[in-house]
This record gives sequence, C-alpha cells and structure tokens, in this order.
Amino acid sequence: MAKLITTRTRIADLGKPRVIIIGGGFAGLQVAKGLRGAKAQVVLFDRYNHHTFQPLLYQVATSGLETSSIVFPFRKRFANQSDFYFRMGEVISIKPEENYIETSIGGVKYDYLVLAHGATTNYYGMADVEQHAIPMKTIVDAIKLRNTIIRNFETALLTDDPEMMNSLMDFVIVGGGPTGVELAGALSELKQHVFPKDYPELELSHMDIHLVEAGPRLLNGMSKQASEKALEYLQQMGVKVHLNCTVKSYDGYEVLFNTGEKLISRTLVWAAGVKAHPIEGLKTDCISKSGRIRVDEFNKVIGYENIFAIGDAALMEGDSAYPAGHPMMAPPAIQQGRVLARNLKRLIRKKEMVPFRYFDKGTMATIGRNRAVVDLGKFRFQGFFAWYVWMLVHLLYIIGFKNKVFVMFSWLWSYFSYDKSNRLIISRNKEGVS
Amino acid sequence: MAKLITTRTRIADLGKPRVIIIGGGFAGLQVAKGLRGAKAQVVLFDRYNHHTFQPLLYQVATSGLETSSIVFPFRKRFANQSDFYFRMGEVISIKPEENYIETSIGGVKYDYLVLAHGATTNYYGMADVEQHAIPMKTIVDAIKLRNTIIRNFETALLTDDPEMMNSLMDFVIVGGGPTGVELAGALSELKQHVFPKDYPELELSHMDIHLVEAGPRLLNGMSKQASEKALEYLQQMGVKVHLNCTVKSYDGYEVLFNTGEKLISRTLVWAAGVKAHPIEGLKTDCISKSGRIRVDEFNKVIGYENIFAIGDAALMEGDSAYPAGHPMMAPPAIQQGRVLARNLKRLIRKKEMVPFRYFDKGTMATIGRNRAVVDLGKFRFQGFFAWYVWMLVHLLYIIGFKNKVFVMFSWLWSYFSYDKSNRLIISRNKEGVS
Repeated sequence: MAKLITTRTRIADLGKPRVIIIGGGFAGLQVAKGLRGAKAQVVLFDRYNHHTFQPLLYQVATSGLETSSIVFPFRKRFANQSDFYFRMGEVISIKPEENYIETSIGGVKYDYLVLAHGATTNYYGMADVEQHAIPMKTIVDAIKLRNTIIRNFETALLTDDPEMMNSLMDFVIVGGGPTGVELAGALSELKQHVFPKDYPELELSHMDIHLVEAGPRLLNGMSKQASEKALEYLQQMGVKVHLNCTVKSYDGYEVLFNTGEKLISRTLVWAAGVKAHPIEGLKTDCISKSGRIRVDEFNKVIGYENIFAIGDAALMEGDSAYPAGHPMMAPPAIQQGRVLARNLKRLIRKKEMVPFRYFDKGTMATIGRNRAVVDLGKFRFQGFFAWYVWMLVHLLYIIGFKNKVFVMFSWLWSYFSYDKSNRLIISRNKEGVS
Repeated sequence: MAKLITTRTRIADLGKPRVIIIGGGFAGLQVAKGLRGAKAQVVLFDRYNHHTFQPLLYQVATSGLETSSIVFPFRKRFANQSDFYFRMGEVISIKPEENYIETSIGGVKYDYLVLAHGATTNYYGMADVEQHAIPMKTIVDAIKLRNTIIRNFETALLTDDPEMMNSLMDFVIVGGGPTGVELAGALSELKQHVFPKDYPELELSHMDIHLVEAGPRLLNGMSKQASEKALEYLQQMGVKVHLNCTVKSYDGYEVLFNTGEKLISRTLVWAAGVKAHPIEGLKTDCISKSGRIRVDEFNKVIGYENIFAIGDAALMEGDSAYPAGHPMMAPPAIQQGRVLARNLKRLIRKKEMVPFRYFDKGTMATIGRNRAVVDLGKFRFQGFFAWYVWMLVHLLYIIGFKNKVFVMFSWLWSYFSYDKSNRLIISRNKEGVS
C-alpha cells in the first residue's frame, strides 16, 4: 500500500502577511474571528478539528450533555471567512530567526505568529498519578470518565466483597477549583436522582464522592463568601470535602494523602492544576518559571517583534492587579484574543498597538440544580438566581445556534425530569476511550 | 492493586421463573418490554449498556446525527419495570442439559432462554477485507467511519500526488441493500452541500463514491420499481453504481473486483451481508447451513423445550412465503419479539402458545433529501412523500421522547441549512476509534 508521507503544509501564498495561530481554544478562536476582513492570510493549527467548550466538559463526563453539543468544527465556524486556512496538526518547534514553524504535518513560514496553545494538566511530577488519574481537559477525557463511571457501576453489581464494591463506587476528585466543584456536584446529582433508579440492586449509600483541595478553601479565585457557600452546598449534597489536603501517590486503587490518610478508589479525577505546554525554539529567558511565555502589554513575546502569546500560554507582566499573571481561565483568553486581533490589524496598517487591560467581568460556578455562586465585582449572590445567570452566560458563549438549542433543551429536560440521559458506555474495548 | 475477578452474575433468586434474554436489539427489547407484568424475572444480557437504533447508524457516520440520539441506555428504558435485571456481558456458551449459560461475567441458570443475539458482519471468508474494511453494525463502527472520512479530507489537502489524493477522497461502499444505498446517498450530500464549503482548497470533483452490488439490482428485498428509482436517484446524485460486481480482495488501498477491474481507496465500507453469530452448546442439527438457529412456528429452537430464538439469529422454517427464513431486518425481529413475549406469558400460565405469522408492513429506504422509495404491499411510491413517510416511521421507532425531539430537530436543521453539523474527529490517537 502506498504510504502516506506529508512534509508540506501546502498553505497557498496569497501575497499577504500570514498570521499563524497555534491552537483554537478560547484565545486562538478570538484572534481568528477578529482578523476577519484584515489584509492578512489567517492560518489556524489545532490538533483537533473542533473547538471544545471546556467549561462544560464536566457535564459530558456526568451524562448531562451530548458530546457534540459542546464542540464545534473549525471549518464550519470559518466557512464564510475568506483567506482563512485550517490545518489539523501539532507544532513541534519554532525557528524565530527564520520566521518558520515545524509541525507534525510539515513546515511553514509566518509573518506573525500567535501562540495560543493553552495549558496542559499539571501532575506536579507525580508519574503514578499521571498514569492512573483521569484528567479533565479534552472531550476524550470527558468521554473516558463517563465510560469509567458507568462501567464501574455495572461491575460493582457483580461483587459482594465490600472493599471491591467501594473501590468501584467511590470517586476522588482532586482540585477545588470550578472544574472539581462542578464535577463533584454533578456526580452527587447522579447519586441522588439517577443511579437509584438505574441500580436498585446497589446500596447507593456506599457511593462516596471525595473532593480534595490543597488550599484552605474551595474556589480560591472567588470571594470568601462564594467559597463558603460552595462548601455548604456540597456538604448538603453529601460530598466529602477535604481541605488542606494533597495527594502523595495513586496506583489506580489506593490514594495516599499528605496527612497519611488513605482512600480506596478506582477513579481519581485530576483537576488540580494546569501548566503551560512547553514549546521548543524560543529563547529560554522568555519562558517564566511556571512555563508560561513572558509577554509585554501587547501580548508580544519578550525579545521578539512578530511573535505573540495569549491565554493560558502567556504570562503578562506589569499588570499590577495580577502580579502572577492573569488567571488561566476563559475570560482573559477571550479578551486577549480580541485585543490582539485588533492590534495585528493595526500592525499590518503600520499603526501603533494598544495595550491590553484585563476587565474582570466576574466569576461563577454551579454546584447543582438551583445552586450556584456568582461574583460580579462587588455583587455577590448565590442560589437559584446565580444558577440562572450561570446557565444564561454559558449558553451565550457556546458556539453555534444548534448547539445552544440542544444544550438549553437538555438542561430544561434534566431540570424537570431530574434525569441525565446520556448514560452511555461507547468504546470498542474495555480500556478503550471513545 | 486488588484485581477484579467476577465469577458470578449475582442475579437474585426471586422464586419466579427466570427468562434470560441474550441481546437487546430490536428483537430482545420487545421480549423484555412485552414481559412487563408477567410472573417472571426478566434478565437481559448485552455487551453494550444501550440499545442501538441500527437503521440510522449511517447518519451518525456521515455527520448528520449525534451519537447519543440513536442509542438508549437499557437501564433507563426499564427503570420502571419491576423484576427486570440488566447485565452487561457476552454469552460464551449454553449448557441446555443444565439450563445454564456461561457468560463473560459468570454463569447463571434459566427457566426460559431467549436467543436474540442478532447477526454479525459477513466477510464471506475474506480475511483481508475483514482486516481493512469498516463494517456498519455498531455505534463504534459509525464513529470510526465518521472519523475516517473527515481525517481523510484533512490529509488530502496535504498532497499534490493525484493518486494519493484520490485514495483519500474516494469511497467504496460494498452492498446495495438499504445500508449501502442510504450511506452512498448521504456521502453524496456531503460532497454536494458540505465539503465544498469546508474544503475550498480541494477540487471536489475528485471525490468519487462507488456503490458495489453483487446482484443485478439495488435493494433486492424491494420491488423492481423501487430498485430502479433508487438507482436513478443515486446516479443523479453522482454515485457510481457497479451492479453484478463483487470484491475479490482489499489491502486497505487497492480494491480488486471479480471483473478484474481495480480501484484505489483508503476507505471501503462493508455492508454486503450479515451472518448469524455462532453460539456454543446447541446441538448441531438445530443450526442451519447459514448459521441461523432453526426454530418452529413458536420461535422454539428445534429439539428444545425452553430455548427460543428470534430475529436475525433465528430461522423459522415452514413459513411458505419465506422458505429461506424471514429477512434479517428490524420488522420480523420486532414482531417475533412481541409474539414471543405473549407466548412466554402463556407458557408460564400453562396455556398453549400461538404460532407466529409475519406481517410484512412494507420496506423503505431513503437516498437523499426529498428522495426515498417505499413499498407498502401493492402501494409503491417514491420521491418527496416517500421521504416524508420514511422520516415519520423512523421517528416513531426511535426510543425516547428526547431522542425523537433531537433527531427531528437535526433533520429539520439539515433540511433547511443543507448542513450536516457533526463533522467531528473524536479520538485519542490517529488510528483510535471513539
């Protein structure tokens, strides 16, 4: 059979400045959108062919939403934008002196390079945890967790050994940020409303949901009020919250904590932190200690004239309100993407760039039905109205009218039926992910 | 780590007759439903945790429908049916003399056994085809085909070698039954309406869709009128139909036909036939030459008193209208399942069983928008109205109100936008399926 070897990305030369964007997450997508109509060729690289709406991954993992409602194909998004090119591939290295990147599908030259390749799960060097835990960064992770939860319950039926049964019915979620809190809440809803009907043969009181946070409070990025309310909600819902607690080791079965305490669980979800994706070829002094790429107030990488970094990948120094950089979340990524698109347009027209200022619109997290916490500057509220606002904001940001309709319908359906209907194991083999 | 070994299916003894159903396809599902309220314990075994609506697999494969709209978790379906037990596992063998089956999760005794384990893809002994072709029997097959189609197009962009490009953009579908015809039509719609927008860099006229049928006409089970119209529709839509043509070999790249002709394609879909799943432990004389299990007019397996077979797995002899057995399709499976449930209830009440009579409600296939063929006894019609009837009937049979709404909305959306929106590659690695 003729082997398939590609060494060229085959991107046409349009005789216009070429802007290459690495990564189609929140940040990269905004740059690409914002460059519509610019006198530039826009090339987007991503290892997937679709954008993923990461804030709702946990709902896919807990059977609440369909996979396809929270992802959106790049080509569909940009079908009507001229001079836009998509390439599915990963970047291997940058050669700044040649204005050139090497990717998994070949090399290509750029005039402007935008690094929006995001962050990856941070296991803090624990290889055993990395091997056995399930992260929560991609759609494949979410489907893997969904398959695992349901397969564990199907297997728990088959044993009368209490330790075996508990290892299958107990879940440990590490990380008390929005992902960990929202996932713990959603699992608790499965325990309360869904699994008792699905598994009348199982004693659901055996199902324990542990949420483990290294710091002294949940939702560290939010107000103290929100943290306390989130803790209260989770405890009302039966989640066992462990504060000031870190994981020392995990072999796929036994979790060891810094306190010396041990837990048995076959499912440990790791939502305890992210770190920058390393990228080869930049000068070492523009990489911060945390691995994020140091940028100036225009998101220009320190020491380069035509390389930019935005979102989780970037560390903007000099914003006095955020001495450690902007939070690695969607809002700064979106805002930086928008401003950078405008600045690239200005650069191309030989105009001066405008500096980026982060506007904190607020933060929110949902714990369960009618239970959410919202911080909007000085306005802090919790409960039903917060939950309603949370849903509205998320619907607003999901791409695609059809996806909005499907997600809204699914939420309404779940609200009135107390059901989460996508309880599916879809995979070819036992260990497979799909 | 404690290893997980289960040797018992742990099915409670209710002191009632136990009916074990193997397989939750159209046939098995009807038996389980029909036994609601019976004085019996109903145990359903399936290797998946969900029913799959197989007639619409091709729409998942061609990005028209979401995965979760055409599958339905068994536990959700039977949550309100008492004395119903579900077990995820595969049957290994039957020991009729002990009224016992051995499964992948342990053994269990039965009072009545219902074999509804369906059929598997028939490669007619061609190991190379089996290795390289994509079948169209399970949801995982459909997702694999979807991933493959889109990944091929992403790769076709990267070459200027015409043979390489054609190998990626050409598709060979083997089998001119409903699956093959419907799949060819849906691929042609992708070519006409979706891919030109997604891939302006590719010359879509290079995309060839070949439909290969061993017999002299398409849709062999339908009227001659339907066959001819289906052929006409497909040809209008640019599908290259090869009649009286069979595949001799396929190495993943080159397809060789009985005519000596060759084609180059990296994607060959095998929808050319099914055969019975073999099952161990039954007397050899109750297995027909085709592998289907010989049953009497009550679907009782020849030579046994408490073992039944229905659907694709069964071959009912003595129905003069169907000397070779009923067609291996949904309608006979559904009808046999319904009648068997009634008969099992009668048996339990020591009443006589009623014989099964197949009522042919008709057959239909859709080729594309506004194009379908329907045979309802002597009424034969094609075109828009047939297409409308096809949609209505399929909506009626999909399980679950939410699924019906989602499928209907997706169809309306596609109809007015000419779009098929789930053009997603969702898999962890290049070769992976998910």
